[in-house]
Amino acid sequence: MFYPGFVFRTSVPTFASTMSTFTLEQVAEHKTTGSCWVIIRNKVYDVTDFLFDHPGGANVILRYAGQDATAAYVPIHPSDALDKNLAPEKHLGSLDTESINLLKEAGKNKVQTRDELRVEEAVKNKPPLGRIINVEDMEEVAKKVLPYRALAYYSSAGDDSITHVENGRAFGRFFFHPQVMRPVSGCDTSTTILGYKSSIPVYISGAALARLGHPLGEANLTRGAYKTGIIQMVSTNSSLSYAQISAARASPDQPLFFQLYKHRNDATAEKRIREVEALGYNAIFLTVDALVPGNRELDIRVPHYLEDFENQGLTTRRKTDVDEGETDRLGTAGGLVIMNDVDMTWEKTIPWIRSITKLPIVIKGVQCVQDAVLACEAGCEGIVLSNHGGRQLEYSLPPIELLYRIQQQRPDVFKKTEVYIDGAIRRGTDVLKALCLGARAVGLGRAFLYAQSAYGEAGVVHLVRILEREIRFGMESLGVRKISELVPQMVERVDWQSVSRAKL
Amino acid sequence: MFYPGFVFRTSVPTFASTMSTFTLEQVAEHKTTGSCWVIIRNKVYDVTDFLFDHPGGANVILRYAGQDATAAYVPIHPSDALDKNLAPEKHLGSLDTESINLLKEAGKNKVQTRDELRVEEAVKNKPPLGRIINVEDMEEVAKKVLPYRALAYYSSAGDDSITHVENGRAFGRFFFHPQVMRPVSGCDTSTTILGYKSSIPVYISGAALARLGHPLGEANLTRGAYKTGIIQMVSTNSSLSYAQISAARASPDQPLFFQLYKHRNDATAEKRIREVEALGYNAIFLTVDALVPGNRELDIRVPHYLEDFENQGLTTRRKTDVDEGETDRLGTAGGLVIMNDVDMTWEKTIPWIRSITKLPIVIKGVQCVQDAVLACEAGCEGIVLSNHGGRQLEYSLPPIELLYRIQQQRPDVFKKTEVYIDGAIRRGTDVLKALCLGARAVGLGRAFLYAQSAYGEAGVVHLVRILEREIRFGMESLGVRKISELVPQMVERVDWQSVSRAKL
Amino acid sequence: MFYPGFVFRTSVPTFASTMSTFTLEQVAEHKTTGSCWVIIRNKVYDVTDFLFDHPGGANVILRYAGQDATAAYVPIHPSDALDKNLAPEKHLGSLDTESINLLKEAGKNKVQTRDELRVEEAVKNKPPLGRIINVEDMEEVAKKVLPYRALAYYSSAGDDSITHVENGRAFGRFFFHPQVMRPVSGCDTSTTILGYKSSIPVYISGAALARLGHPLGEANLTRGAYKTGIIQMVSTNSSLSYAQISAARASPDQPLFFQLYKHRNDATAEKRIREVEALGYNAIFLTVDALVPGNRELDIRVPHYLEDFENQGLTTRRKTDVDEGETDRLGTAGGLVIMNDVDMTWEKTIPWIRSITKLPIVIKGVQCVQDAVLACEAGCEGIVLSNHGGRQLEYSLPPIELLYRIQQQRPDVFKKTEVYIDGAIRRGTDVLKALCLGARAVGLGRAFLYAQSAYGEAGVVHLVRILEREIRFGMESLGVRKISELVPQMVERVDWQSVSRAKL
Amino acid sequence: MFYPGFVFRTSVPTFASTMSTFTLEQVAEHKTTGSCWVIIRNKVYDVTDFLFDHPGGANVILRYAGQDATAAYVPIHPSDALDKNLAPEKHLGSLDTESINLLKEAGKNKVQTRDELRVEEAVKNKPPLGRIINVEDMEEVAKKVLPYRALAYYSSAGDDSITHVENGRAFGRFFFHPQVMRPVSGCDTSTTILGYKSSIPVYISGAALARLGHPLGEANLTRGAYKTGIIQMVSTNSSLSYAQISAARASPDQPLFFQLYKHRNDATAEKRIREVEALGYNAIFLTVDALVPGNRELDIRVPHYLEDFENQGLTTRRKTDVDEGETDRLGTAGGLVIMNDVDMTWEKTIPWIRSITKLPIVIKGVQCVQDAVLACEAGCEGIVLSNHGGRQLEYSLPPIELLYRIQQQRPDVFKKTEVYIDGAIRRGTDVLKALCLGARAVGLGRAFLYAQSAYGEAGVVHLVRILEREIRFGMESLGVRKISELVPQMVERVDWQSVSRAKL
Repeated sequence: MFYPGFVFRTSVPTFASTMSTFTLEQVAEHKTTGSCWVIIRNKVYDVTDFLFDHPGGANVILRYAGQDATAAYVPIHPSDALDKNLAPEKHLGSLDTESINLLKEAGKNKVQTRDELRVEEAVKNKPPLGRIINVEDMEEVAKKVLPYRALAYYSSAGDDSITHVENGRAFGRFFFHPQVMRPVSGCDTSTTILGYKSSIPVYISGAALARLGHPLGEANLTRGAYKTGIIQMVSTNSSLSYAQISAARASPDQPLFFQLYKHRNDATAEKRIREVEALGYNAIFLTVDALVPGNRELDIRVPHYLEDFENQGLTTRRKTDVDEGETDRLGTAGGLVIMNDVDMTWEKTIPWIRSITKLPIVIKGVQCVQDAVLACEAGCEGIVLSNHGGRQLEYSLPPIELLYRIQQQRPDVFKKTEVYIDGAIRRGTDVLKALCLGARAVGLGRAFLYAQSAYGEAGVVHLVRILEREIRFGMESLGVRKISELVPQMVERVDWQSVSRAKL
Repeated sequence: MFYPGFVFRTSVPTFASTMSTFTLEQVAEHKTTGSCWVIIRNKVYDVTDFLFDHPGGANVILRYAGQDATAAYVPIHPSDALDKNLAPEKHLGSLDTESINLLKEAGKNKVQTRDELRVEEAVKNKPPLGRIINVEDMEEVAKKVLPYRALAYYSSAGDDSITHVENGRAFGRFFFHPQVMRPVSGCDTSTTILGYKSSIPVYISGAALARLGHPLGEANLTRGAYKTGIIQMVSTNSSLSYAQISAARASPDQPLFFQLYKHRNDATAEKRIREVEALGYNAIFLTVDALVPGNRELDIRVPHYLEDFENQGLTTRRKTDVDEGETDRLGTAGGLVIMNDVDMTWEKTIPWIRSITKLPIVIKGVQCVQDAVLACEAGCEGIVLSNHGGRQLEYSLPPIELLYRIQQQRPDVFKKTEVYIDGAIRRGTDVLKALCLGARAVGLGRAFLYAQSAYGEAGVVHLVRILEREIRFGMESLGVRKISELVPQMVERVDWQSVSRAKL
Repeated sequence: MFYPGFVFRTSVPTFASTMSTFTLEQVAEHKTTGSCWVIIRNKVYDVTDFLFDHPGGANVILRYAGQDATAAYVPIHPSDALDKNLAPEKHLGSLDTESINLLKEAGKNKVQTRDELRVEEAVKNKPPLGRIINVEDMEEVAKKVLPYRALAYYSSAGDDSITHVENGRAFGRFFFHPQVMRPVSGCDTSTTILGYKSSIPVYISGAALARLGHPLGEANLTRGAYKTGIIQMVSTNSSLSYAQISAARASPDQPLFFQLYKHRNDATAEKRIREVEALGYNAIFLTVDALVPGNRELDIRVPHYLEDFENQGLTTRRKTDVDEGETDRLGTAGGLVIMNDVDMTWEKTIPWIRSITKLPIVIKGVQCVQDAVLACEAGCEGIVLSNHGGRQLEYSLPPIELLYRIQQQRPDVFKKTEVYIDGAIRRGTDVLKALCLGARAVGLGRAFLYAQSAYGEAGVVHLVRILEREIRFGMESLGVRKISELVPQMVERVDWQSVSRAKL
Repeated sequence: MFYPGFVFRTSVPTFASTMSTFTLEQVAEHKTTGSCWVIIRNKVYDVTDFLFDHPGGANVILRYAGQDATAAYVPIHPSDALDKNLAPEKHLGSLDTESINLLKEAGKNKVQTRDELRVEEAVKNKPPLGRIINVEDMEEVAKKVLPYRALAYYSSAGDDSITHVENGRAFGRFFFHPQVMRPVSGCDTSTTILGYKSSIPVYISGAALARLGHPLGEANLTRGAYKTGIIQMVSTNSSLSYAQISAARASPDQPLFFQLYKHRNDATAEKRIREVEALGYNAIFLTVDALVPGNRELDIRVPHYLEDFENQGLTTRRKTDVDEGETDRLGTAGGLVIMNDVDMTWEKTIPWIRSITKLPIVIKGVQCVQDAVLACEAGCEGIVLSNHGGRQLEYSLPPIELLYRIQQQRPDVFKKTEVYIDGAIRRGTDVLKALCLGARAVGLGRAFLYAQSAYGEAGVVHLVRILEREIRFGMESLGVRKISELVPQMVERVDWQSVSRAKL
């Protein structure tokens, strides 16, 4: 156990009043598409009708048909997922005591996989937090202590990861014109985002499935954000329920943004929006750049990798000698987007959301100048220049390049709406370049997932401190005291590509 | 054996009515340029007069003078090659039964070469097709299971392979301007090429000697093309006869294009064109960029490599201590082009072809803007911007760069003729960039050779599925539903070189 | 011992007239923030009140509270530091004889650290000076013989060392237009800097803590400069006192420049300026690009590195399992800048310095065209285009690029003030490019630190000889006989990045 | 022995009529600067007065003072060097028979150095010439079979070898616009240079000391040039005498060019020019880019390398623990240029040469557009755009880039004089790019040195055949039949850097 003694307060799933009990044998009989039962946290559920509505596909469930699915289910589903998606009468009841004990016994005797052993060793050798002095250090540790499946989901990018890498390299074509002999004492790094105060011009970008990396998942982010005075954006696909995250806030005033993947069914989408507004979320970030499953090959290859890794050196080299079906190509990521509305338009969708909620609307995933202008015309309160961290369409322009083009071609955009960017931001200088070029704030997603995976809430706090220090130092070095003094003239786009991290 | 139990229906070579039989000893006496006999599939041929007409040079034949040449001959010659090239009276007869048994026995006792052993091992460890998730995976497998000589022929490029690599790198200078909030459900990837329907804007480019990689050779491509709804271009130098390939079609409606290397003898060329038209081929792709043998060094070095590889660790390090002659520098590739017409002109050659056939004429190998214009003026139905996959003149402009220049300088070309490109296309995004810039379709050659070499027809089908999925995803991400909606504004040529495949 | 027999004449710290003596036990009782004593060179000091004024933070001192701090103190403090910073009554007295002997005994028995052993071995294998044929050779040797802490301080740069590397790479975008058939016999490499003669257009840039690398420290530079006819700039943070350095001059006419970090307390700053003017220093180089501590990660990680390095292979892997505080992030470098004035302005600060001294004022750390102009308007006698060797703000423009921009946009600057550059200059060609583009001279900092660390004064002389030879050769090759003949037309900024040092 | 049985006909040095004989002991007494004798080919010479006139410095001679210097002397001096430089009375006489036998005996018992053993092994494993299929193959072999000192001299370049590498990389920014459908049968690669016929537009550039690599030295080049119909340029510093090289010609009609390093003494220079004109040389290539010794570090480090290499693993690591003097920094190369005239001018020097000789004058080493124009105005018959193969001033523009600039800025130059380029040419495409951009021919220096070092005359012939084949193929692929059809429109300078040789 990572965090011995810690009990996370989940909302206990509700059950039908008259509960039956079942033996493992009884459950085991229901293992086909005709009748499919699964055990989750010692409860028995009939998921037969749900099989083909499951966003991740039926196959994933059928692997556990008639068996205990707890270990696979828990880290990637919020606690209210069964309530929300499964009619009460399908909550069949509980295992009997003997079965529960049998499962517990089996759990104890379970042989650890090689991946689990690797992680266990890595956790033992984890450096103390004080040794983490920059964002990349954090990522390095996380990549060691994360289970392979989680790592693959977090780190994978589209096709050949070129866009992911290019997002970062693009910052290497922007240099500063620092101004000296300017008073910088009392330099203030704070700003506002959609009117909400933020201690630094950085927010936690919506990123799904935080519990893959840490048992407390998104709650680490919520608490860390509070302690450091920044704002968290919560993903539609969070692994805690929206209510749990809302409850994790230190005070009801702590702002939360909601990253909306609009469901193709308007009624479902409406319900989701109303729920988060009621829970006190403060803005809707409508995600428009990841409506169809991207080709995240690392994620897709996870089953191949694990299989080979476990069998290394054994005679039987492979089990999956058959061509996988389409859904098996989705990986962890693909399953999340399968129900998205792929027919949204500026004319139809924005007014429809306005009709449901008073919350400000931000378009997340703008990738060309023209769409930035269209978002302004549609009255959006903000836009995020983003190619989804390079996880979707390969060769979508790096956000800092797009920002630069908007600054060159349509500077009026910055007067009409707040502009943010995300993708491969790792240094205070990256943040400052974006701000000089007109961005109001920047989002970091993976970095925060890594931080909470490696060190929980303390990691999140530490990460913000690192960024805060780097941003402050950068402002002082540029000769400014306030965020608003950062202007385009302080940045020059050069005609060469600077080197990547140089090892000394 | 790769595919045990499979028998490929070849057209049996016809023989003179009164057949003689010969012993191995009798044949062995004819081993000089004065009298040269060879055995192929237990038949005896007198090739004395043909020696110096052989496209691959006399030396290659003389290595087998008086001996059995079956293993070397079969994979690179269509079954009708002897009929077409050798007068009936030179088909001398058959081996006697005892000689046939002796050969068979010798075949059984033959010690496998190190290269054969390597291939055998690689075939055993070949991953299941389901693990192949992109074009490069396919290439990787093929490069392991191909015999060295085949690999060298397939993969070799001109001089230092710079152009081959640059063809691919060029795509890394084109980025997308994806448009969001556009309806993309029901996205349709199909188009037409020369009026023929294609499920995706991709065709199989003419590539010679498919049977070097797989016993079914070009027929794998024909069948795979049918199953996936795309079109195959057949090379003049196919290793199955044009008739066999035509017969491999699932229906007479399945379109086939013909890649013509015009023979320097007009009569021979005319015969060839009339033959394919009669067999139902649907277009002539006149190849103009590979009329003289390129300097494909990997291919040329094959004999050196194999010799050293086999002798590794032995005392005798080298056998070929003499300077090889000119023809030995040709490699497998060089032999194929030696009879080409190197004096074609726009004024003379196009009208001459028109006078022979009603088929549309496409010029394959246009390498500068001016020639694209000349092809339009000559009334060609299409042009392929191609530098022969980097296999001919080093530093010929990458096709996507040439396409971009035509789009900039002479956009009228796209209205007058269909434009295709080929060379180093590996991803759906490569295809889409070309289409945005005005191409109607793109050709893949090596990729299909690799696919059929590694997995036969199933490999071809799988490859198309991969491309189809990537193209569809790309279209949806760009915000388009139809191929015709892809326009130049969706692509930007940037001033930096993006990274190559990034390993995570 | 490096230099056996050598005794450096330090100014002996003055003590109160009536001196007490103490035992080690007595001193050991004062080991808290409430009462903190330390032993330095067998003398006892009460630093309790000074703890929180210490530029390097209290923690660094507290590690030695109640103990002997000599080894840590001596190499980084000038001999007059205690006099200047500690009231006479805090100079408590001396250890008694027995205690002195005990310390001496302990010193003898002290087990060498692994880093000390490494250095000892490296010194043994140091190549003879004649083998050092270029600036990089010198750096290579120094990096081997320097203690890790010194190396980290000398070599570390900001964030990811990108700017440090880019400073050097930038020279690779400037090529020469050499002119032939011009008489070059008697080529003269000398010039003047602020009116002072220099044998080559190079000066020793101010760099702190030379005694970290060699017991004679800055004096090596002073003497080497004299022997070769170049000028030394002395850092505010020199490890010898300004008086000692002044005294190390061969004659009172030898010019010395002073690199001023203006203290936030005007009175302290004034005292410092008056002191150096009185000592005969000839110019004030006001440093404006390193007022707040940079993020020099190599320097910051020193404690982690040493700890791990010493414990390698032992059971106990780490001692510092707690989060280090803010001051611990400062590294050796951070401590030096903590008292700087961060609120200087052109309007206020320059006239204030003028009111105190008649010395010429040079602004060191100009990083944009506009500030070059402002410095002219403020009447400064010179400016150094510098990003502090890449040690401060990452992505500050490389100085040679800035020089080029000034030459393009504001060539009038060169008529109004002397312009110098520093940062990553390693070759005579680097110097000549800068001079062609308008620089009067260039500064080298690290290179001289390395030279004196590796070979003392002889290293300094050797380094100048190397540069002199390269500069002369370059001038002859360009077809000029005098520095003043170097003009912008002799240099072209090209549109590609040339390779870095090529290994043959 | 490389070439057993071969005896090269050297002109026997003349001696004073009355010859004395000496013993080894007698010679050994003269080992100081006061009286310095050396033995060369069993003859005794008094070189005392010559010591400080020796271009390579006195030290080099003093190493052999009083001893046998044959092995060091022979490979780098033409046979007439002693006659030309040493007065007859200093040719003291011969060793006596016993001494001669003693020397012979010593030679037999001499332990081979590690470098000699390495070379011996490499020569044994040298691939047959037929395996050499491109210029780089040749270089690779030569680099293995050359003694270290020779390799260092041949391959070394200025400073960090950046310019040497950039010369080659520059070709990677020029791409072709090949034209198809043009008749190319009977393609003719021949041209004229200064009116002399050449089978391909390539000449052998003057390169010194060919006998370091092969006992027949420059004569290999003369004979190979004849066999292949190209022209050789002979260096002032050839290791055969100009007369020997002239005599090595197959016929008096075979053209030879002379690369002149003008001696600072006009009389000496005049004598040299008159000598080569009398010997039938056909042009003067006045070298102007290597008048002062370049910083060729590989060459300079030779003594260090050999010493360490020989002592590897022994206790005594180093012998040279003292600082080497200035002349020791010259390397093999430096010694050759020390007497050059560094005060030439267009106005004075060209007319002076004209006054002595009727031969055409070509300026070798033009490095900027302006000097190309000045050479035209001075009436020179040709210019070589060259930075001396990157061996002199680092960051001199690559010649192909300079050629491109002249084509852009002053195309009139090509009408007024013949323009050649040299430096890092390795492929037929390199040659063709230069010719398209206006060059009449290109020179290769190192490549021919490598060829003759590895395979003697046969290597030279083979190298030309390789180039001829590549040039012909390139012309055919570009759609031209004659050299004169190569025009600037066939080449495009692109805005990216193509990859270097790609390994497959």
